[in-house]
Amino acid sequence: MYRSNTCGELRISDVGKTVTLAGWVQRSRKLGGMTFIDLRDRYGITQLVVEADAPAELVETATGLGREFVIQVKGEVVERSSKNSRIPTGDIEIRVETINILNKSLTPPFTIEDQSDGGEDIRAQYRYLDLRRGPLKRALELRHRLAHEIRNYLDSKGFLEIETPYLIKSTPEGARDFVVPSRMNPGQFYALPQSPQTFKQLLMVAGYDRYFQIVRCFRDEDLRADRQPEFTQIDCEMSFVEQEDVLNTFEGMMRTLFKNVLNVDIPNPMPRMSWYDAMDNYGSDKPDVRFGMTIHEITTLAQGHGFGVFDSVPYVGAIAVPGAAAYTRKQTDELTEWVKRPQVGAKGLVYIKLNEDGSIKSSVDKFFSEEDLKAIATATEAKTGDLVLVLCGQKRKTQTQLGVLRLEMGQRLGLRDPKVFAPLWIVDFPLLEWSEEDGRFYAMHHPFTAPKPEHLDWFYSNKKEDLERVCANAYDFVLNGNELGGGSIRIHEAAMQERMFEVLGISKEEAEYKFGFIINAFKFGAPPHGGLAFGFDRTCALFGGQETIRDYIAFPKNNQGRDVMIDAPSKIDDVQMEELCLASTVKENA
Amino acid sequence: MYRSNTCGELRISDVGKTVTLAGWVQRSRKLGGMTFIDLRDRYGITQLVVEADAPAELVETATGLGREFVIQVKGEVVERSSKNSRIPTGDIEIRVETINILNKSLTPPFTIEDQSDGGEDIRAQYRYLDLRRGPLKRALELRHRLAHEIRNYLDSKGFLEIETPYLIKSTPEGARDFVVPSRMNPGQFYALPQSPQTFKQLLMVAGYDRYFQIVRCFRDEDLRADRQPEFTQIDCEMSFVEQEDVLNTFEGMMRTLFKNVLNVDIPNPMPRMSWYDAMDNYGSDKPDVRFGMTIHEITTLAQGHGFGVFDSVPYVGAIAVPGAAAYTRKQTDELTEWVKRPQVGAKGLVYIKLNEDGSIKSSVDKFFSEEDLKAIATATEAKTGDLVLVLCGQKRKTQTQLGVLRLEMGQRLGLRDPKVFAPLWIVDFPLLEWSEEDGRFYAMHHPFTAPKPEHLDWFYSNKKEDLERVCANAYDFVLNGNELGGGSIRIHEAAMQERMFEVLGISKEEAEYKFGFIINAFKFGAPPHGGLAFGFDRTCALFGGQETIRDYIAFPKNNQGRDVMIDAPSKIDDVQMEELCLASTVKENA
Repeated sequence: MYRSNTCGELRISDVGKTVTLAGWVQRSRKLGGMTFIDLRDRYGITQLVVEADAPAELVETATGLGREFVIQVKGEVVERSSKNSRIPTGDIEIRVETINILNKSLTPPFTIEDQSDGGEDIRAQYRYLDLRRGPLKRALELRHRLAHEIRNYLDSKGFLEIETPYLIKSTPEGARDFVVPSRMNPGQFYALPQSPQTFKQLLMVAGYDRYFQIVRCFRDEDLRADRQPEFTQIDCEMSFVEQEDVLNTFEGMMRTLFKNVLNVDIPNPMPRMSWYDAMDNYGSDKPDVRFGMTIHEITTLAQGHGFGVFDSVPYVGAIAVPGAAAYTRKQTDELTEWVKRPQVGAKGLVYIKLNEDGSIKSSVDKFFSEEDLKAIATATEAKTGDLVLVLCGQKRKTQTQLGVLRLEMGQRLGLRDPKVFAPLWIVDFPLLEWSEEDGRFYAMHHPFTAPKPEHLDWFYSNKKEDLERVCANAYDFVLNGNELGGGSIRIHEAAMQERMFEVLGISKEEAEYKFGFIINAFKFGAPPHGGLAFGFDRTCALFGGQETIRDYIAFPKNNQGRDVMIDAPSKIDDVQMEELCLASTVKENA
Repeated sequence: MYRSNTCGELRISDVGKTVTLAGWVQRSRKLGGMTFIDLRDRYGITQLVVEADAPAELVETATGLGREFVIQVKGEVVERSSKNSRIPTGDIEIRVETINILNKSLTPPFTIEDQSDGGEDIRAQYRYLDLRRGPLKRALELRHRLAHEIRNYLDSKGFLEIETPYLIKSTPEGARDFVVPSRMNPGQFYALPQSPQTFKQLLMVAGYDRYFQIVRCFRDEDLRADRQPEFTQIDCEMSFVEQEDVLNTFEGMMRTLFKNVLNVDIPNPMPRMSWYDAMDNYGSDKPDVRFGMTIHEITTLAQGHGFGVFDSVPYVGAIAVPGAAAYTRKQTDELTEWVKRPQVGAKGLVYIKLNEDGSIKSSVDKFFSEEDLKAIATATEAKTGDLVLVLCGQKRKTQTQLGVLRLEMGQRLGLRDPKVFAPLWIVDFPLLEWSEEDGRFYAMHHPFTAPKPEHLDWFYSNKKEDLERVCANAYDFVLNGNELGGGSIRIHEAAMQERMFEVLGISKEEAEYKFGFIINAFKFGAPPHGGLAFGFDRTCALFGGQETIRDYIAFPKNNQGRDVMIDAPSKIDDVQMEELCLASTVKENA
């Protein structure tokens, strides 16, 4: 062992001990003939001091140390004269007797500090140096801790972690699979799993009634910001359970994680919200409930006042932004432009200011009396000093726009504190979504999701309006406006599955082609089962109080799906292509 | 929840309780008007009884149950009149009040029993049914338990589990990579990792001084028996350590696994054997030390007796097979044929029988006096009743053949009990292997393995015989004749790495091309580090007392790399090929 102690553990009680430390030179400085060196390892930073009267050779070595040199030092733990209360080792320093340079370092291309001077690109290229920085180290430590706590919790509840294969079969629908050509089976391909969904359901058929896996998944999508082509999922499935059992089990898991990892108590029981309430009140199926500012329908109050824009639409809704009545014309204009951006898509914005002096001012004063406006304000629960923002149009579309506006206003008002955690379950999802465009129903979750038992009459009805109100035994775990996980109780009976395909307009032949293998497995005694999966990368990021997942992945890819550190993907040589019986159709210099 | 209890937990103390169970019908039988049903779930089997005087409907339902039907039953726990001591629930049965058929089942294509009547192929095709059988369930439970214990141990020692990417860059040497075409980067490919070697060394550069990961690895090799294209590795690396630290850490891990999982105490400290001793005495770098029968060199004793076969070779070696002197001529002839098979490759076999009556009989009586033969027998530590088997030729080759013969004889004599565990470390591997064919040295482990500090003079010598005797700081963990793991202390200094490339005849340009990326990373302060990896699949199999890994993988592939259950790999459609800018060069019907 190159060290007797780490750079994070020595305290005032260790004074007098002779120790050996090893680590990286964080910085060094000369002060009145003495050399001070901050030595860093995974566990912390310890100050080293080479006295002015130390042997010349030692002073020379200390003087020659560059940033990020790897050294081993031996010396005595002494009390510092000027203590540093910001680090746990700040009461002591090491009076160095010997320095052994284990390895030199080129000057790193950016500073290895919590706030680095390096841009994103250079840090990605030198990820192994970026990973030395405190925030990334804490992120990966948190990730380890979370994974470990998850496993302990699920193990304690009788779950078995079972590894499912990564080289599987390409599936004909959903997002694109990454494929892997098989050399031993020329012309054939494996696919990398988008999730172990099929395998976990097969494990239920096989009788492994509590399964989980922290598992990599792969999706060859055009990458949006903060998506990765490979990502990690906490994948779970249980047999002989109902929705309530699944929710209780994983609520317990989340409660344990919050308590053991962050020492945060989340409500017990955790709040639940129906999908309908989430849409009506928050304009989102993943509402951020850290703050109010909920959406209120004001259609009745808004219509019949001669304002054509309101009168011609099925839905008018509003939010009351606390304390924003003082917004200037410039600010409300900017907000109007903001909601008209294609990302939001509203046609315009109506505002009502409840000024501190008791007066009311709106952008539709022409059509609405002060009384009318007051009634609307009251309906939105606005108070004096608030700004009521109104959008209108198709119901769900407008609610969604209001939801986006609500989040933006919450952000601007600092109501979205990443250190505050507001988890909840969204339940009672519609089973089916009607597509006007295709004139057919689609499964909102997936075609194996079970309808609620109490909605079976509607499920077997042939009326569109009945089918539209069938709810699914599906659920999402939402945290601070992010969907962290979701799942459902699955259909396990052949007859119900057939009805589902019928409702979705999937013929027997098509069902057989697309899902034949799993349908067949289900004929040999499939138990009632259900489960869910959590996105582990985002869980880590949110627990760490961050919105972006990239710092919580040791070696992430960029938005073009490239690992710029190792320069992948890259070309492979012709011999390999030949062995795989493949030819590229890419035109060189095209 | 569909059940109040599992099928494995009810005992005599539960008599009188009304319970609800759910599971699969293992078997049912009629006996004097009563119906007995064995209900099975993951936790065990509980006997159900439907009394002869039960309501007709209930009797009818019970009678109609087929094998593997999924049912839910409610009833009272009663004491059995004829108890079954072979199962933990054998003292009780459930007097059934209601049966709810949750799902029917087709008749499974083979029996779901510990000993199934199904052949390997049909069981592979219906893996989800095979997984219902006891041996596979216990295998996967053991696998979960081992993974969990490994994680707990390493976490307790300050290791962080850090996930490394699966979509990486193809490396230009070693076994073949599986590759993944990138749609977003046409003409380019990711590769699936054969191991996270590069990334774990980068994590050491990044300062994560104790890393581990239970991780999937991929190797596109022509599959030998009991190899899988994807396999799982316990991958570990440490910084600021010497070989002794690595050995102690993982010896501790293995000791903990044996104790906590199997309640087996392995020797403390674990035995260590140099590679040279392993080759000389066991003819193998992964000796099975559950039994003796070691190899003895008898070159001096064997030569100079006019037997040209012995006189013309550099090495003669022998093993003494206990109690096998009574082998008939037919048996020794068969053994002679056995060692001449290409898999062993010996030219012939000489035997010496130490008969129970004190006489000695050998196949070379013509050349050796009884005294000569006695001297040889003594040298091999043979006793009366033993059979001495002699091979000769080139030293290492002959030792290897004797090693294979030794294992075979051990097997035949029942000395290789899978419930006996004999772990050991093999250390002091040669750093380099000379290839007569290529006239150059190859790295025995890999080009980053460090020479032993005490052999540095030889390492920097230009004499072949000096270089040949350089030992590496490398080590293998061997259990019962299987290499379960191995690793090394890595070179972390640029100058030593350059010398290594020089010794291996790798030019600067070639080194830069092949290893440039990691060499560059090492310039920024690489700490001294080393690690190892264990094959997790085989660890599970050996802990389970099995030689084959397939039962310890939930969804394994066959020897052609196929998953016959899901029928992968398979063709992908033309659209996908086009999107990937790929064309197949396979000739249809060729």
